[in-house]
Amino acid sequence: MQNALMPNLLTKRAFLTPDRVAVYFDDKQLTFKELYNQSLNTAGKFQGRGIQKGQYVGVLLKNNLDTVVILFALQLLGVRAVILNNRLTSSELVWQLKDSQAASLITEGSFADKDLEIRDMLPTLPTLLKEQLDSLPTEIPDILEEINLEDVCTIMYTSGTTGNPKGVMQTYGNHWWSSVGSALNLGFIDTDCWLCSVPLFHISGYSILMRSVIYGMPVVLHESFDVEKTIQDFHSKRVTIMSVVGNMLTRIIEFLGEEPLPEYFRCFLLGGGPAPLPLLEACVAKNIPVFQTYGMTETSSQIVTLSPEYSISKLGSAGKPLFPSEVQIKLEDGQKAKEGEAGEIFVKGPNVTSGYLNRPGAMLDKVHDGWFSTGDIGYLDEEGFLYVIDRRSDLIISGGENVYPAEIEAVLLSHPDVMDAGVTSREDERWGQVPIAFIVQRDGRSTAEELEQFCLKRLAKYKVPKDFYFVEELPRNASNKLLRRMLGK
Amino acid sequence: MQNALMPNLLTKRAFLTPDRVAVYFDDKQLTFKELYNQSLNTAGKFQGRGIQKGQYVGVLLKNNLDTVVILFALQLLGVRAVILNNRLTSSELVWQLKDSQAASLITEGSFADKDLEIRDMLPTLPTLLKEQLDSLPTEIPDILEEINLEDVCTIMYTSGTTGNPKGVMQTYGNHWWSSVGSALNLGFIDTDCWLCSVPLFHISGYSILMRSVIYGMPVVLHESFDVEKTIQDFHSKRVTIMSVVGNMLTRIIEFLGEEPLPEYFRCFLLGGGPAPLPLLEACVAKNIPVFQTYGMTETSSQIVTLSPEYSISKLGSAGKPLFPSEVQIKLEDGQKAKEGEAGEIFVKGPNVTSGYLNRPGAMLDKVHDGWFSTGDIGYLDEEGFLYVIDRRSDLIISGGENVYPAEIEAVLLSHPDVMDAGVTSREDERWGQVPIAFIVQRDGRSTAEELEQFCLKRLAKYKVPKDFYFVEELPRNASNKLLRRMLGK
Repeated sequence: MQNALMPNLLTKRAFLTPDRVAVYFDDKQLTFKELYNQSLNTAGKFQGRGIQKGQYVGVLLKNNLDTVVILFALQLLGVRAVILNNRLTSSELVWQLKDSQAASLITEGSFADKDLEIRDMLPTLPTLLKEQLDSLPTEIPDILEEINLEDVCTIMYTSGTTGNPKGVMQTYGNHWWSSVGSALNLGFIDTDCWLCSVPLFHISGYSILMRSVIYGMPVVLHESFDVEKTIQDFHSKRVTIMSVVGNMLTRIIEFLGEEPLPEYFRCFLLGGGPAPLPLLEACVAKNIPVFQTYGMTETSSQIVTLSPEYSISKLGSAGKPLFPSEVQIKLEDGQKAKEGEAGEIFVKGPNVTSGYLNRPGAMLDKVHDGWFSTGDIGYLDEEGFLYVIDRRSDLIISGGENVYPAEIEAVLLSHPDVMDAGVTSREDERWGQVPIAFIVQRDGRSTAEELEQFCLKRLAKYKVPKDFYFVEELPRNASNKLLRRMLGK
Repeated sequence: MQNALMPNLLTKRAFLTPDRVAVYFDDKQLTFKELYNQSLNTAGKFQGRGIQKGQYVGVLLKNNLDTVVILFALQLLGVRAVILNNRLTSSELVWQLKDSQAASLITEGSFADKDLEIRDMLPTLPTLLKEQLDSLPTEIPDILEEINLEDVCTIMYTSGTTGNPKGVMQTYGNHWWSSVGSALNLGFIDTDCWLCSVPLFHISGYSILMRSVIYGMPVVLHESFDVEKTIQDFHSKRVTIMSVVGNMLTRIIEFLGEEPLPEYFRCFLLGGGPAPLPLLEACVAKNIPVFQTYGMTETSSQIVTLSPEYSISKLGSAGKPLFPSEVQIKLEDGQKAKEGEAGEIFVKGPNVTSGYLNRPGAMLDKVHDGWFSTGDIGYLDEEGFLYVIDRRSDLIISGGENVYPAEIEAVLLSHPDVMDAGVTSREDERWGQVPIAFIVQRDGRSTAEELEQFCLKRLAKYKVPKDFYFVEELPRNASNKLLRRMLGK
């Protein structure tokens, strides 16, 4: 029998458990049957606007019930959603829409300014506002009865050392195996309910939707993180699991004070970069179950997670690879590292991306002997637990968002007064890390404020350096490679 | 990335959760690490006896801790286990060993008589008693680091209308998807513990071992069903799930009387043929959670199961297909049946066998448009719930064992006094169904006792007809096909 085919996920879920709640959002909720019916209706409207199977379609939306419907409508049609980070500037968004050859853009009224600017730059790109959907005629959509696990479901862009974002292809199989791997690790019971206040445009958020439909589990969706609303919904919706990044967890712990978590609450899934040890220790002291995880867009969410029985004895470790996946540490010469020896983290498994959109070469560079190079540094202890020492040297993680120095440097270098630029990070109590810039000026002299304004027009706010340091020269090695770690040292 | 490769299941499980209990048997228990180490040791002994990757090796064992070790040792080596039903006669076993071209036979002292008879008939087949293992030297085994999901893991024989048993090939992928499909339906939590007193040589038992290693879940293994020991272990081992067939459940209900099940007990998984409605009603009345299931050797255990929320409103239904699988009813002309219309049950999914060993033609006959023909009769109601009306007309299910009339008829017809023979079933309070025979004699006259003795030498006891009726002729249709349903009518 053909292993790669499976019933369309939402169709099957709505058939299996039509009356279970799929999503809560504010005072609204949808069962799986309602979600299916609304997604089907929306798919019919999309089809009427020429959106069809196999196309890449940009999606620029906030976390909302409508967004969930739209994302599943695209799945029903077999459309590949290019899910756009809504904090990006128009020019960043246009870059991704062009790169993915998006056939349409689906967005919403609250992004009207960006939408206008995008239309300006891409006048031929059909744009559809979600607010228009009600007035559009609907067709009987041509939905995919079966999905091929090898087909691309979503595209999410990440940047690399070169500064050019690349579209990570996430197949249905990547999402499926990620969900299954997570269930085999965390368990899954029919009373589970997952709170999602991380963005749906990140794999951390989108993967919760996939688990919802694969497990038949309700998701409590928030537009963004709000600590008070979080604790309220823990009680009113009987939340059992929540995905968090470091600063969210810190604020929850502070807000809770002496108040315990409800007893049905099972765990926090903590991702988005290395967690500070004091935070983890505070959680252990308060008996708050935290699963530290390690993952990336290219692994369709977590690939390494710390199992319940080791949350104390292996504090600070990211754990072991999920059942279907594997981890290896390699030294610079390609040899396998010994126990305790630090090197580059390589991963393998059915949740690992099949490649970057339209960039087969980029994947060839990243895969060695079937192992995917993460660029991150870590080691395995004598029992095989992974300790992530550092995300790849050039990556800054600010409030759970990936920030790539090379991308910021490229913007700074486009300023006429900037001769050379280097970006690194400093620690920040709220965001974990924030980017800072080191500038070598030409004769013309811009102020830090002028450079900041220049960046704000071209980069999402979280990428704009918090400090600008003017220096005589940047540390570079013999082959003229920028040594970012030496900046400011 | 290559989807078909995965870490060796037991290796990975022992790495992930070494200290969790894998199996309880009598007063012994093994953690996953211990199970791995013992299996590795046994694999080394097997290798020393020439057992190696890719071979088919017969396994004739009782439910026992050693059996679990042996079965996983074979997995570690990448050997395909031909798992033999230990109730079969020597000549039936020899037939399967020959058919599978088994390179060796692994058995135990308690089957010494059968072993002797088998050696008599297959003098060149190397046989290994499990009691010999201790004294054998062990090698460092050449274990499979990764398994290919498309590789054959086990062979289990089933008979069909022709009377010749066929070896069902169960791949690692079939077992994996079956386990995952079951977890997505029943849920899985780290306090789960599954009681297995069904035979490991059946897919109902073997699939519990696979779930154990994939979920990281302890199995309480019993040599055979014992109602008193069952209830004891529900308490002492905190059992949460148990696989049963109808008569086991009946005896448990009777034994319990007014005593409730422990509150952590989650459910009975009821398979092995249609359950009598009064039994299901008694369970509902006593608030005993029963999941009725439908499955077969060719689907590597359950493929259709009734979800918790429908156990009362859809009493008597087998439920809906597990997430990755599909069900369809087809009429004799190949058309899809309408709601409520009975026809043949067809199934599809990654848990469905890739075929019968050395019989590609047999699979071609069974698969139409990617759908596997079960031969069973049923219908889907307006909500898509499957109701199994009858297992394929020629199949008798006696105490959970499949009995094929054609196989028994072939034995009867080999008796010099028997001119024609037809086998059907009658209801039986203990076993559900038992086979009965209708005989047209030649001139020589054998008694029922003589025919019974003749069968006992050639057929497993549960296949031997309980009654013999001597008749003038058998009901046959125009094309001379035996009408088994008309026997005795």
